[in-house]
Amino acid sequence: MLERMFDPNAVAVIGASRKEGKVGRAVLENLMANGIENIIPINPNDSEILGLRAYQSILDVPKEYNVELAVIVIPSKLVPGVIDQCGRAGVANVVVISAGFKEAGVEGARLERECVEICNKHGIRMVGPNCLGIIDTGSGLNATFAANMAHKGSIAMMSQSGAICTVALDWADRTNVGFSKFVSLGNKADLDENDFLEFFEKDTSTRVIAAYLEGVKDGPDFIRIARRVTRSKPVVIVKSGRTSVGSRAVSSHTGTLAGSDAAYDAAFMQSGVIRADSLIEMLDLSRAFSSYSLPKGRNIAILTNAGGLGILTADACSGAGLNITSFGESTISKLRNILPPAANLYNPVDVLGDASADVYAHALNTVLADENVDGIILLVSPQAMTDVTEIAEKIVDIIGGSEKPIMCNLAGGTRISEGEDLLQKNGIPNYPSLERAVASMGALCTYHSVRNRKYDQPVKSKSIESRDVADAFIGKAISNRERILGLESIDILSSYGIRVVDSRIVKTLPEAIVVSEEIGYPVVMKIVSPDISHKTDVGGIRLNLRHADDVERAYNSMMSDVHRYMPEARITGVQVQKMISGGKEVIIGMNRDPQFGPLLMFGLGGTYVEFLKDVSFAVAPIIMGEAKHMVSSIKTYPLIAGVRGETPSDINSIIDTLMRVSQLVTDFPEILEFEINPLMVMEDGKGCVAMDVRFTIDVE
Amino acid sequence: MLERMFDPNAVAVIGASRKEGKVGRAVLENLMANGIENIIPINPNDSEILGLRAYQSILDVPKEYNVELAVIVIPSKLVPGVIDQCGRAGVANVVVISAGFKEAGVEGARLERECVEICNKHGIRMVGPNCLGIIDTGSGLNATFAANMAHKGSIAMMSQSGAICTVALDWADRTNVGFSKFVSLGNKADLDENDFLEFFEKDTSTRVIAAYLEGVKDGPDFIRIARRVTRSKPVVIVKSGRTSVGSRAVSSHTGTLAGSDAAYDAAFMQSGVIRADSLIEMLDLSRAFSSYSLPKGRNIAILTNAGGLGILTADACSGAGLNITSFGESTISKLRNILPPAANLYNPVDVLGDASADVYAHALNTVLADENVDGIILLVSPQAMTDVTEIAEKIVDIIGGSEKPIMCNLAGGTRISEGEDLLQKNGIPNYPSLERAVASMGALCTYHSVRNRKYDQPVKSKSIESRDVADAFIGKAISNRERILGLESIDILSSYGIRVVDSRIVKTLPEAIVVSEEIGYPVVMKIVSPDISHKTDVGGIRLNLRHADDVERAYNSMMSDVHRYMPEARITGVQVQKMISGGKEVIIGMNRDPQFGPLLMFGLGGTYVEFLKDVSFAVAPIIMGEAKHMVSSIKTYPLIAGVRGETPSDINSIIDTLMRVSQLVTDFPEILEFEINPLMVMEDGKGCVAMDVRFTIDVE
Repeated sequence: MLERMFDPNAVAVIGASRKEGKVGRAVLENLMANGIENIIPINPNDSEILGLRAYQSILDVPKEYNVELAVIVIPSKLVPGVIDQCGRAGVANVVVISAGFKEAGVEGARLERECVEICNKHGIRMVGPNCLGIIDTGSGLNATFAANMAHKGSIAMMSQSGAICTVALDWADRTNVGFSKFVSLGNKADLDENDFLEFFEKDTSTRVIAAYLEGVKDGPDFIRIARRVTRSKPVVIVKSGRTSVGSRAVSSHTGTLAGSDAAYDAAFMQSGVIRADSLIEMLDLSRAFSSYSLPKGRNIAILTNAGGLGILTADACSGAGLNITSFGESTISKLRNILPPAANLYNPVDVLGDASADVYAHALNTVLADENVDGIILLVSPQAMTDVTEIAEKIVDIIGGSEKPIMCNLAGGTRISEGEDLLQKNGIPNYPSLERAVASMGALCTYHSVRNRKYDQPVKSKSIESRDVADAFIGKAISNRERILGLESIDILSSYGIRVVDSRIVKTLPEAIVVSEEIGYPVVMKIVSPDISHKTDVGGIRLNLRHADDVERAYNSMMSDVHRYMPEARITGVQVQKMISGGKEVIIGMNRDPQFGPLLMFGLGGTYVEFLKDVSFAVAPIIMGEAKHMVSSIKTYPLIAGVRGETPSDINSIIDTLMRVSQLVTDFPEILEFEINPLMVMEDGKGCVAMDVRFTIDVE
Repeated sequence: MLERMFDPNAVAVIGASRKEGKVGRAVLENLMANGIENIIPINPNDSEILGLRAYQSILDVPKEYNVELAVIVIPSKLVPGVIDQCGRAGVANVVVISAGFKEAGVEGARLERECVEICNKHGIRMVGPNCLGIIDTGSGLNATFAANMAHKGSIAMMSQSGAICTVALDWADRTNVGFSKFVSLGNKADLDENDFLEFFEKDTSTRVIAAYLEGVKDGPDFIRIARRVTRSKPVVIVKSGRTSVGSRAVSSHTGTLAGSDAAYDAAFMQSGVIRADSLIEMLDLSRAFSSYSLPKGRNIAILTNAGGLGILTADACSGAGLNITSFGESTISKLRNILPPAANLYNPVDVLGDASADVYAHALNTVLADENVDGIILLVSPQAMTDVTEIAEKIVDIIGGSEKPIMCNLAGGTRISEGEDLLQKNGIPNYPSLERAVASMGALCTYHSVRNRKYDQPVKSKSIESRDVADAFIGKAISNRERILGLESIDILSSYGIRVVDSRIVKTLPEAIVVSEEIGYPVVMKIVSPDISHKTDVGGIRLNLRHADDVERAYNSMMSDVHRYMPEARITGVQVQKMISGGKEVIIGMNRDPQFGPLLMFGLGGTYVEFLKDVSFAVAPIIMGEAKHMVSSIKTYPLIAGVRGETPSDINSIIDTLMRVSQLVTDFPEILEFEINPLMVMEDGKGCVAMDVRFTIDVE
């Protein structure tokens, strides 16, 4: 259906105008300038605008025109009525350029909701409101008021900011970068990024999808869709509001609740989306994907006429995880024949400052032919003898015939500009810095791995006994309006197949001894009190109790210590736990992100989490590969994987626990926050044990 | 003296040529093109070149010319002889452009040494060899074979790569950035970065010093000089070879031994040098320093006609440690009068997409006048109604009259290029991305703090008793060719005023008991054996021994355990130490960097150092402020500073220990590596105790 929006049989401009400076005129002119047929201006006061027959209302347009798109540029308060007219006239797609909706306050938000309701009633799909419009370079549709028309190309771009659309179009005009489709999403009242991801996925003229987003509307759907789309096409997104400052700016700009940046990072990672750090990077990477085939691996050659640039590029490659490859022997001997004796034949190849275009071309072809080379970073500095333009001519020929990506950085200004233009006229990017060339190569390699990623579907853990225990605890918490559940609710974990520490709460010393005997020594005792949060500080924890005498002594001294430190504290009991030793403490947590829902966290216990923020995140439900990645991607992973001959911890049991927690928090949206702290991980093969748990329940 | 090199009474070109394509012609033409008088070509075969009277040899030039600079462009093997002639002719400065020296192999290196010896004999100062030459835009001297002449400006740039000089000159030509002096350092056989730092420091036409370096020749001198120079002028350096891959490329390029990147980071930080991450960033930052006054603080305003760009800029500012300031009330009310109702009056200010140049100018002036604003990031997107050129005109006027820096990002391509040219024609940078504008603002703020930094001189610690103990230990190690000194040498630390654990080595159980009584319980016992490195693994450590019985039991069981685990191990004794508990373990280390000498390291003990690389570095000798910074800049600093009501550790005693270690490793260059591990830090006021030590001594 969206196909018709971009290639309509006829397009109506509601609010078309002949007045200079009016958006209604700019849209009409843009449509006319690009050779679209059947453009119908709608304006109650005119019967002809810019030579086109105009109608007073969309309802007056003869049916045989078959209007498939209406572009609306009228004051916001009139928009709902006009959309309703579109519906009655059988127009299935509208682009609402008009502002004055959600972004403008309460009344605008009401108008926007009304528009959506009317759209839904008629089955109309709407872009906007508050947008720049849409472009399709294939059909020649330019339904925007932008000053630039996009060039033809294979990038489909969408943007939540109309102004950023104009920046991208203007940049692309200067660098000769082309688009297939261009969508200004505006307020995303109806159609949003998820709809266009799916549309661009099937669009044969689109090779790469780019987006500027301030937030996503439906996080879980986004992950599901993007995960599929990225299998066939790279998706590059710059998401603003990374920092708390930026995120406040987002919410004042569009009223979007930004969600946490960690959740976006996790969601993008899980769905194979390539996250760009800046608008320029998004444009760079999109251009790279539209210009080059994917390299087969990360083995990169550097070719330069300036040793210094070669070194800087080697540094940048190393930082981007690219491998400075070694050449085969025949490459070296060929280079030796081509290059002067002082040249460096090894990677980075330095053809020297006086290299002619022919020498450059020979060297480039030689390196390109080496099977150890997956891609090339080509640097040219404008030295006294360097004919940059002639070198650029050779580069154009060679890149035209190459399957391997060759990223160019003609470095400088005045003397490289002709060569730069030549490259760009031929659809070859000239990256303005070597770092940008390297980053683009890195993204190509990254996407190569994304595409080869195996996805297993999230599956229900087999050994989960039942939801009943959790149902009961959570139900009771809600009816009692108890927000926090602690250790007493640990059976929820057991019922999800997570091993928990043997632990009971007792009220008296004799009881403590009986329970200790049952649990089996050694045991640990902890004071239980609603008033004491840091038990250690008041002497409220006793470890390693090995027999009844120990228990008795510890019980009595603990009680007297606690009374001495906090005489007012209400003591509700003493917890007796099996003492678990020899394990490593890890933490599994979850909180609910407003955009993406349950965000799982994993990290090593204690200071690692608290000060070093050495944690990993993933949006639940997770698949096995993601659980593995969560565990292995923390910096302290070596500590649990086993270092210096130490026995490795039971990583598989952590992964299993993560999968079960993922299941639990997915099953129960009422769980707002969750933490197993610590989860004690034993040596490999011996599992792990949840020592304590804390739920925050949505009791409202 | 170097003044005469850049503004010589007469300049001789030795190897001048009339042949097209020869470097000897290019140099001559460059000199002639810029209106220098008294240019004297030297060529044995010509009496006239390009209309100038030529001489066969420098010795033939009449004395009255007073040649103060000779530029040498002849085959390398002839260079030493010619420099000798220069000396005899009384020429005090030479620039050797010729290649074929150290970079070309053993014979070249010998020639280079010969040149230096001859220079020294005659008191000649030499730039190069293997360089592009030098430029002084003040005197009009262009003694290079570069295709571009530098524009006049206030950046003094030096570069270890001639090709990178050409990139910088060509970039500057396109962006209208000017230089005061320009030096291609080449092989730095005589004059190096330190000489030019000192020269540029005093050069009144220079406001900022920029450098591309692959290494520094004399690290300690560099720190001393740069520390002084950065008090008056910003120094921006891009140092290549950050990564091991890049660093290998450096050494194959120039034969420079790169030294560790951590040492460069530390040295730059200690001397106030601003390290740029890329060539482009170095150029950006230099341009910023040459174009703007320093802001008084980090309070930044953002002004935009595109909300999305405002958010991205807020993100970038936050990442760069800049504060998105709050405006005063009068600013808000003035903005309310100027801007349409839908505009955002708060920072980031959004003047909206249809803002005219006048609106932009009003808003900019209003924000500029706010005393809470130290600097402005100004963004312009080329929207349909935006007259970018007119806005640029207003910007030029306003920036011309402003003390506060206003960094511009006209974002886009085609439609902003006229405005961009207009800015640049007026010496105002247009940053090609908002991130680059923000990074430049950040650098200005950083330098503002550098200039306000207080330096105390490194002083000898007062309470150091004597060098005698260290002399004795190290002397003995050298004569016995023992590279490693362990705990037995801990008295070296005591003699430098560092408290050490009370510890003795015993051979028998009765001895162990006697020593334990003397030291005072509780004690620790450790096996001493050259064959056992991980004592814990073989049961070779016993903790918390509280009386003679404990010692007896532990001694016997330790011996039997060790015999069982490692029956072949030679046991040389048992170490009895005072048991220290309640402290936190930190590590102080040192290794000798080839460039900078003793590089101190500080970090928390154990996994923090090993896996998280949570350590800080500084080049010794350090001053108090640097020792403080070393301690406070690790991520785990809160763990020792005291968190959640815990008693803070004795930070001052760590700082004191660092100062003493700095002194020790400075006094004894024979100490190649050094580690106190652990240094046990007690609670605040109670000091710290070195528990073990390890020296690696240079015994060769």
